[in-house]
Amino acid sequence: MKPAVAVVEPKTPGNVGTIARAMKNFGMDDLKIVDPPELDRDSEAYGFAGQAREDVLPNYDEVTFDELVANYHTVGLTATTNEDARKHVRFPFETPAELADSLAEAEADVVLIFGRESNGLTNEELARVDQVCSIPASADYPALNLGQAATVTLYELRDLTVDETQHPDVERERADEAAIEGFYDGFADLLAAIDHPEEKRDKTMRLVRRLVGRAHPTGREIATLRGVLRRATERAEAADPPRTQ
Amino acid sequence: MKPAVAVVEPKTPGNVGTIARAMKNFGMDDLKIVDPPELDRDSEAYGFAGQAREDVLPNYDEVTFDELVANYHTVGLTATTNEDARKHVRFPFETPAELADSLAEAEADVVLIFGRESNGLTNEELARVDQVCSIPASADYPALNLGQAATVTLYELRDLTVDETQHPDVERERADEAAIEGFYDGFADLLAAIDHPEEKRDKTMRLVRRLVGRAHPTGREIATLRGVLRRATERAEAADPPRTQ
Repeated sequence: MKPAVAVVEPKTPGNVGTIARAMKNFGMDDLKIVDPPELDRDSEAYGFAGQAREDVLPNYDEVTFDELVANYHTVGLTATTNEDARKHVRFPFETPAELADSLAEAEADVVLIFGRESNGLTNEELARVDQVCSIPASADYPALNLGQAATVTLYELRDLTVDETQHPDVERERADEAAIEGFYDGFADLLAAIDHPEEKRDKTMRLVRRLVGRAHPTGREIATLRGVLRRATERAEAADPPRTQ
Repeated sequence: MKPAVAVVEPKTPGNVGTIARAMKNFGMDDLKIVDPPELDRDSEAYGFAGQAREDVLPNYDEVTFDELVANYHTVGLTATTNEDARKHVRFPFETPAELADSLAEAEADVVLIFGRESNGLTNEELARVDQVCSIPASADYPALNLGQAATVTLYELRDLTVDETQHPDVERERADEAAIEGFYDGFADLLAAIDHPEEKRDKTMRLVRRLVGRAHPTGREIATLRGVLRRATERAEAADPPRTQ
C-alpha cells in the first residue's frame, strides 16, 4: 500500500522539491501535480529534492483534480478543520496517525492531496475527497508550511511504505533478562562489599532496577557494567574493613 | 516540559527559518544556534519562518556546544546510527516517538540538538550528548533535510509541548452507541421492507456493522442516515409487493 502524492497548484518549486525528498525518505515514488510551476533542472525544486532529483521529481505526472477523484481513493490534507459535526466539508477528519491505521486496511489505490501554499484546498475540493486528514498543531499557529506538512504526513505513513529502515533491529540488541538479572546480583554484591547500610540496600536496589529498566540496556552495556561491578567488588573485599562508626 | 532546540553551524538561513516555524507550530519557543549564519530580516530565514518571524526567530540565542552540554540534558539527532551495540557513539538510539515517551518523565531542562546540513553532528559531539535520537526512514535514503528532520522530531514531541491543538474534541463528536444501534435496527427494517433475501440478511448486517464501525460516525451522520433509512423503509412498505421470482 504505497499512496501516490498529489500537490494542487503549488507556486514554489522549492516546496515541490521538499515533498519529493520526503517521498523518497519515506519510500514513496508516485508524484502528481495539478498545474505545476516551472520545474527546471536548475530550479529550487531540484535543489531541495536531494536524491529524489534522480527519480521521484523528474518522473512526476501532471494531472487534473478531476482525474484524481475519478481514479483514486482520495485523502485531502488541511490545517483548518470544522469545529463540529454540523458541517461536513472539513469534518470528520483523521490525524496522520489515524490515517495510517485506516489506510492499512485499504485495498484501493490511494492518493494524498496537498493544497496550495496560500490557502490549501478549497471547500469545493475538500467536498469531493473521500477522507480528510489534519495534522494536530498549536492552536496559536496550526498552519504548517506545505513541504513540512507533507513531510510529517509521509513520516506517519512510513509503516505502510518503508520496507526497511536504516535502523538496526533494536529488539535483537537488548540485553537478555538473565544478563540484566546478573547485573542486579552484581550490584547487590557490591553494596555488601562496600558495607552499604543494610536497611538501605533494598531501596537502593529498587532504584537501580527502575533506572536500568527504563534505559533498556544492550547486552554490551550490561556486560561492561557487570565487569566494572565485579572489579569494584573484588577491590572492596580486598581492602581493609571500614572503621566502625 | 518544553525542550529548547539548538542547531549547530547551520549554513542555510532557510533551514533556520523552517525550524523556527516548526517550533511555533508545535508549541516551542527557545531557539539556540551554534555559529549562526547571517540572519537578516530579508534573508530566507525570515522568509521561511511564517509567524515565527515575529518571536521565535528574532529571539534566538547564540551559544556554544560546550554551553549546551554544561547546562542541559542533551539529545543529539542523527540519521546515521551504529549497526550494533559494539560502538556507543550512535547506539543505543531512540526514535522520536520513543523520545517523546522518555522525555515525558524527565524533570531536567532538555535541548534537542540538530547538526549541520552537510554531515550532521560529529562523532565527538554525539559522544558528549545524553541521548541519541534517529528518525526511522527508508534504508535507501534515510537522510532527511535538516528542516524536515526538525519538523518531524518536534511534531512527535507535540504531546509534551502543545497545550491546545486547533482540532475540536473528536471524542465528544462521536455518535453514541444507542444511536448507532438504532441505525442498525433501521437498516434491518429496510432490508425487510425491500424483501432482501432472508438468508442474506445476517451477512449483510454484519457487513454494514463492520463498515460503519470502522468509520466512527458522528451523531450528525447517524441522525441523517437514520432519517434516510426511515423514509426509504416507509416508501418500500407503501409500494406494491414485489413480484414473486
